[in-house]
Amino acid sequence: MSRFNSRIVTFISDFGLQDVYVGVMKGVIAQINPQIQIIDLTHHIPPQNIAAGSFCLLNAYPYFPVGTIHVAVVDPGVGSQRRGVAVAFPGGYLVAPDNGLLSGILNIAPATAAVELTNSRYWHSANPSSTFHGRDIFAPVAAHLASGVSLTELGVSIDPASLTVLPLTKYEATNNGFLGRIQYIDHFGNLITNIPQELVEGKIWSVVAAQQAIPSCFTYSDAAVGELVSLIGSHGWVEIAVNGGNAQSRLGLEWGDSVSILIPSKDVI
Amino acid sequence: MSRFNSRIVTFISDFGLQDVYVGVMKGVIAQINPQIQIIDLTHHIPPQNIAAGSFCLLNAYPYFPVGTIHVAVVDPGVGSQRRGVAVAFPGGYLVAPDNGLLSGILNIAPATAAVELTNSRYWHSANPSSTFHGRDIFAPVAAHLASGVSLTELGVSIDPASLTVLPLTKYEATNNGFLGRIQYIDHFGNLITNIPQELVEGKIWSVVAAQQAIPSCFTYSDAAVGELVSLIGSHGWVEIAVNGGNAQSRLGLEWGDSVSILIPSKDVI
Amino acid sequence: MSRFNSRIVTFISDFGLQDVYVGVMKGVIAQINPQIQIIDLTHHIPPQNIAAGSFCLLNAYPYFPVGTIHVAVVDPGVGSQRRGVAVAFPGGYLVAPDNGLLSGILNIAPATAAVELTNSRYWHSANPSSTFHGRDIFAPVAAHLASGVSLTELGVSIDPASLTVLPLTKYEATNNGFLGRIQYIDHFGNLITNIPQELVEGKIWSVVAAQQAIPSCFTYSDAAVGELVSLIGSHGWVEIAVNGGNAQSRLGLEWGDSVSILIPSKDVI
Repeated sequence: MSRFNSRIVTFISDFGLQDVYVGVMKGVIAQINPQIQIIDLTHHIPPQNIAAGSFCLLNAYPYFPVGTIHVAVVDPGVGSQRRGVAVAFPGGYLVAPDNGLLSGILNIAPATAAVELTNSRYWHSANPSSTFHGRDIFAPVAAHLASGVSLTELGVSIDPASLTVLPLTKYEATNNGFLGRIQYIDHFGNLITNIPQELVEGKIWSVVAAQQAIPSCFTYSDAAVGELVSLIGSHGWVEIAVNGGNAQSRLGLEWGDSVSILIPSKDVI
Repeated sequence: MSRFNSRIVTFISDFGLQDVYVGVMKGVIAQINPQIQIIDLTHHIPPQNIAAGSFCLLNAYPYFPVGTIHVAVVDPGVGSQRRGVAVAFPGGYLVAPDNGLLSGILNIAPATAAVELTNSRYWHSANPSSTFHGRDIFAPVAAHLASGVSLTELGVSIDPASLTVLPLTKYEATNNGFLGRIQYIDHFGNLITNIPQELVEGKIWSVVAAQQAIPSCFTYSDAAVGELVSLIGSHGWVEIAVNGGNAQSRLGLEWGDSVSILIPSKDVI
Repeated sequence: MSRFNSRIVTFISDFGLQDVYVGVMKGVIAQINPQIQIIDLTHHIPPQNIAAGSFCLLNAYPYFPVGTIHVAVVDPGVGSQRRGVAVAFPGGYLVAPDNGLLSGILNIAPATAAVELTNSRYWHSANPSSTFHGRDIFAPVAAHLASGVSLTELGVSIDPASLTVLPLTKYEATNNGFLGRIQYIDHFGNLITNIPQELVEGKIWSVVAAQQAIPSCFTYSDAAVGELVSLIGSHGWVEIAVNGGNAQSRLGLEWGDSVSILIPSKDVI
């Protein structure tokens, strides 16, 4: 890992950008080491939606240099007994509450080591607030980690297998395809299902959602403007979109709603 | 003050992020000195709400390195006779219109020196626009200050006591506690009162707001999910929240609405 | 061009900040060269609104160091036959889909050279997704350009005259002034017309919009609080505002609506 790579810290949270919470976390990092480069993933995770945070973090980490430190704070249990943790994994490090927020990554790229954040020497102060561990614990811990402090100095080692992993939304096989769910809705109103591309690639397939048959295409503009299309999205999941429009408002679907994937050749092959 | 510390410039404004106003201010700084590190506090101060800007700046500055230059632009009087100022204070420097935006900080950490921004040599051009002094005056002045230009070069010295300080919302003592107001509402719908933690710490206390009695707790999750709770927030003020929910929409309260703090032991002790 | 100037990359898009799309583009750049400084212009261009993107880019670029690389992604035709291009122009470089997004700049500061982005060596991978060329092509190309790769290495040279330029909204001369349109509405509700300041400067002029006569002033606060005012905005166009308020909601006007500029002296002089 190069010296530069280890200096990048990313932030993902449900803090929004209306308040100074995010700015203050960056200030705390700059107090410790103003050379650290900080990149925001997003701060608009729906409030307290741990599954959405887990999904976003999973989809973002592969695009960062190995060694990057990802700080994730969607933390409805702040101040309770839930642990704060730092985790080493093949992509770098994760600093977060141990509440399932790391589930998506831990399923794909398992932790190689983990500590509970018990060493207050690396906190903003030995008496953290009860409501803002992002500022008082997670940001300063990440800054010290980015500055060369080793993982094991940050607290007591814990078994990576003890980290909280949420049961992720599962799809089911059906007679003629798969039954899945909408696991994320983006800014454009694209509906991202939990059906991975491996299940449909190289096959003839289509989608049924909100009682509408939606053909599969290669990209948005393969459909006429205003038409529904299903495709393999940039995240690597089957996605429903409207060319030049908003699939969520068109179909009236929400997070968690079901979606059928039809693969006519499934029985035959 | 180290060389690094002096290179950080923060921005706080009511510009929002829809337009290119914030990006353009950063461009102007990069034209003068591309080495300067810029950190956004927030650009979502409610339009022209000077009190909210003052509150946010007050709560953010302590988390930045001493010597940081804070640029604040909530400026309904831009182009009028209101002064543009740069101020030295114990935390570093403030660059802003002299319209009360610095009130919160100046009450806590008084200015040690101040200038009116009259030296057009440090502006983007000698003929600034009448509507965007953030771009034409405040950002370039901050960039020069961060690059080593001294405060007194930026304009004529003025008496720090002449800087505009707004009457901040005051709380009142009552027979059985205090009567305060909501001075800020954050992204989560948490209602932040103007009652400082010093008034309740170590005591038994509760809140009455919107005709509901709200018990005090240590942190959000001390209450059941969906229940109202009052606590000392991370800003250091009494705050009303809902565990896993939104206190503003629950109680229907707004900025400036009153809140009673009950301290039964107040008369006795 | 100094070494520093060439290191700045700006981003403008319609991606919003809710998802990790913008963060991921920054990660891709950091993987190639973590030293590159990235500045966001805005990511809140109305979805798929190429004209708004063109307007914002035009108004922002002059405030950045010469040599800056501007990456613009408003890309409804992603994955179709529309070209991806990199363009040299007097302000630096532009990297974007060739769909009219560069129209505003190309009209004012014509391209000196252009290439179609055909060299997959400088892409994130040789097999880009069909829906996110920002991540897979535009961001990595910009990172390589910022790191010293020459324009001509990025793909086959094309005639700058072949770049797509949209017919921009035009104003018309009338007997007593000009008839123009609203070409942009900002966060404050200020209505920015397509009438350039050159047409009104030094003259007596006023505006009629939504059947209301609106006097011209020097700055917002020349009008009483709550009153409509027209002025030359910081972008250099005639703009309609409300002192301390929102002109869009007051007048009920939208993008593209017409506005009359009255110049009584026009016939005489």
